[in-house]
Amino acid sequence: MTAYILTIGDEILIGQITDTNSAWMAQQLNLQGIRIVGKTSVGDVHEEIIEAVRYGLSKADLVLVTGGLGATKDDITKKALADYFNVPMIFHDETFERMTYFFKKINRTVSDLNKSGCFMPQNALILNNDRGLAPAMWFTVEERNPDTIGKGGKILVSMPGVPHEMQHLMSDRVLPRLRASFPMSPIVHRTLLTAGEGETTLAEKLNDFEEALPENVKLAYLPSLGTVRLRLTARGDDEAFLNKQIDEIKANLEKIVGYAVAGYDEDTMPVAIGRMLQSRGLMLGVAESCTGGYLSHLMTTVSGSSAYFEGSAIVYSYYLKEKLLNVSKEMLDTEGAVSEECVRQMVTGTLEALNVDVAIAISGIAGPNGGTPDKPVGTVWLAVGNREETIAYKIGLDRGRLKNIEYAANTALNLLRKFLLQTVKAE
Amino acid sequence: MTAYILTIGDEILIGQITDTNSAWMAQQLNLQGIRIVGKTSVGDVHEEIIEAVRYGLSKADLVLVTGGLGATKDDITKKALADYFNVPMIFHDETFERMTYFFKKINRTVSDLNKSGCFMPQNALILNNDRGLAPAMWFTVEERNPDTIGKGGKILVSMPGVPHEMQHLMSDRVLPRLRASFPMSPIVHRTLLTAGEGETTLAEKLNDFEEALPENVKLAYLPSLGTVRLRLTARGDDEAFLNKQIDEIKANLEKIVGYAVAGYDEDTMPVAIGRMLQSRGLMLGVAESCTGGYLSHLMTTVSGSSAYFEGSAIVYSYYLKEKLLNVSKEMLDTEGAVSEECVRQMVTGTLEALNVDVAIAISGIAGPNGGTPDKPVGTVWLAVGNREETIAYKIGLDRGRLKNIEYAANTALNLLRKFLLQTVKAE
Repeated sequence: MTAYILTIGDEILIGQITDTNSAWMAQQLNLQGIRIVGKTSVGDVHEEIIEAVRYGLSKADLVLVTGGLGATKDDITKKALADYFNVPMIFHDETFERMTYFFKKINRTVSDLNKSGCFMPQNALILNNDRGLAPAMWFTVEERNPDTIGKGGKILVSMPGVPHEMQHLMSDRVLPRLRASFPMSPIVHRTLLTAGEGETTLAEKLNDFEEALPENVKLAYLPSLGTVRLRLTARGDDEAFLNKQIDEIKANLEKIVGYAVAGYDEDTMPVAIGRMLQSRGLMLGVAESCTGGYLSHLMTTVSGSSAYFEGSAIVYSYYLKEKLLNVSKEMLDTEGAVSEECVRQMVTGTLEALNVDVAIAISGIAGPNGGTPDKPVGTVWLAVGNREETIAYKIGLDRGRLKNIEYAANTALNLLRKFLLQTVKAE
Repeated sequence: MTAYILTIGDEILIGQITDTNSAWMAQQLNLQGIRIVGKTSVGDVHEEIIEAVRYGLSKADLVLVTGGLGATKDDITKKALADYFNVPMIFHDETFERMTYFFKKINRTVSDLNKSGCFMPQNALILNNDRGLAPAMWFTVEERNPDTIGKGGKILVSMPGVPHEMQHLMSDRVLPRLRASFPMSPIVHRTLLTAGEGETTLAEKLNDFEEALPENVKLAYLPSLGTVRLRLTARGDDEAFLNKQIDEIKANLEKIVGYAVAGYDEDTMPVAIGRMLQSRGLMLGVAESCTGGYLSHLMTTVSGSSAYFEGSAIVYSYYLKEKLLNVSKEMLDTEGAVSEECVRQMVTGTLEALNVDVAIAISGIAGPNGGTPDKPVGTVWLAVGNREETIAYKIGLDRGRLKNIEYAANTALNLLRKFLLQTVKAE
């Protein structure tokens, strides 16, 4: 099964918003074994929409359309679809009832403009939206008859462009209906989150493993800053067999990658680290200089992180390094803030000042200014320690200010992971 | 002049990367008065690339292509373009020389695979890439002859997909050449960064202003979290006249928007705030609870922020609020950490503990858990103060954990802006 993604809206074409919907939809379809053959964005222009719909349906079995379903006069997707299918727009009572109910809850009345949004192309099957006013519309393209949906033909689905509404409609309405309409052959996935090794290094290690993979199993490398996800995908007829097969292969993969495996499936590094801290009953404290709070932000993106994250000292100035963390003025004068000794002292100071079990410290030169010949921009010292032991690590490559910050924070998380693995057993 | 954007790469179609290049290119073209009529992504498939190139050239005067220029066998853009134009690939000596020089610098030798990357379609004008190995290629489409570039015909430009390389090539090679090749009528812009007022509120205030705008001047609203950029665009024949005209209109716009104007042109809130602090000779300290370091991160995305940003206490736990910021245990027991009194005490504690001139404090419930009937998820208290005065503000709407964090940090920045405007004169 193939799919085509069509995003509609002038705001995409003028670059006012970055289209994140396409990537999310592509990931979801990919997990179902549906291959995306192309994606296109057009403006809120009647003929352009019709032309793009026609093109998409000529290229793929499924066309997913987002955007242009708002109540303003710019949003013309519904009218364009009705014209493409050559059907009238009819008033959809249930959408109006849901709208009236929603507005009553927030003490407002339905305006004429809102009410006009309840007209839908006659051949659309309406999929209710629990997170917004505009429902999704499901069209079978050959039969043009809602009663025969799933009995053949191509499918076009139109959804609002608001990301959380689209995600709800895809997950709760569209994908289940797709699975019911098009019995797809089973597909199962297992993902390992790895940290600290580049894609090339992993690929070399996994050369023999990949060559020995059975025909129906594929390995994908999904690299990002400091981490690589390894995703196994198995296809076949018997889901129970596939699960058994892929679990064995995953165990084998995990053995080869070993130490670098930081988590599984949807885990992010902050989630994986949080679990490690929590299972060891440890509270983390952080001292950040050049990363300016970014590492603390990463840790606290995770709901429930207060169970293992105590807090941080963002010591951007020399003064605060001394005042809050008791870093020695003499050492700062001789070695400077970007030094192994400084981050070691910052760890000690954090353990004390924040009264935590384990601490991370980061100090470096994010740039673009502030570099020197022996400490060029991009030089970052990291340390992780507890009251018994501290390890330190140096980064030496300039990636640009923001990337330097992000890379340093991610590398620090991996250093903490290694430290916990090596020194502190889970309870 | 119209443009079409084509991004090439399987990694886009499987959703492995989010395409941020398109939005950036669209913004740049838009500023030049070039209208984007569509954009499309295709995989690394020879026929798909050719079909998309043909389609793009049928729709627009300029086709910008990114991606598929790496040295691996997946990257087939160049071969597809050569086949589309029906020209051979020829070895480009200068690209090879630049490559050899680059590898010598990093003590490596040019591999055969790298060397094979120096073959280019015969009709391409090569635009050197100072940030990477793959140059951009500029094609005139009618004449197929580099000597007549700009004398007519359509243009296709192919660039690498790595964002910072593409941005360098667009800014330093492609846009200047476009301006030289296609004498465009002058277009000038002025942007006001506004904060604290929604798009609808601004639009109501600006109703009369917009109606009175001369035919050749447009106003665009570019909203983002807590800020709206107002962009004026004037087109005409005489650039000097346009600059005079738009400056007068901008002055008028600024008068109407008044207080909400936070900055100009490319300013972000952290940049604008930084300038205000620096001009007043003030050092800022921050205390963050629910935002977990995100506000400090925003402030330190700005190079040179150490001139006005001292540091932060990320007091995620009750314990650290007391220990680092001297927040009263009794108050925490009675009022809780998410209260006006708490953020006021956090400001006082930050001024003291960090020894700064002005402090921001944030405490709230980011969610999705932790809400109570009287303090639901999304409740965030903010305070800003110095040794004379502190102001506080409450946010009450749940936008989801990450957006709650981002919105609270951005709102705190605007609260600081107002505080500085009202209480502390610039030196």
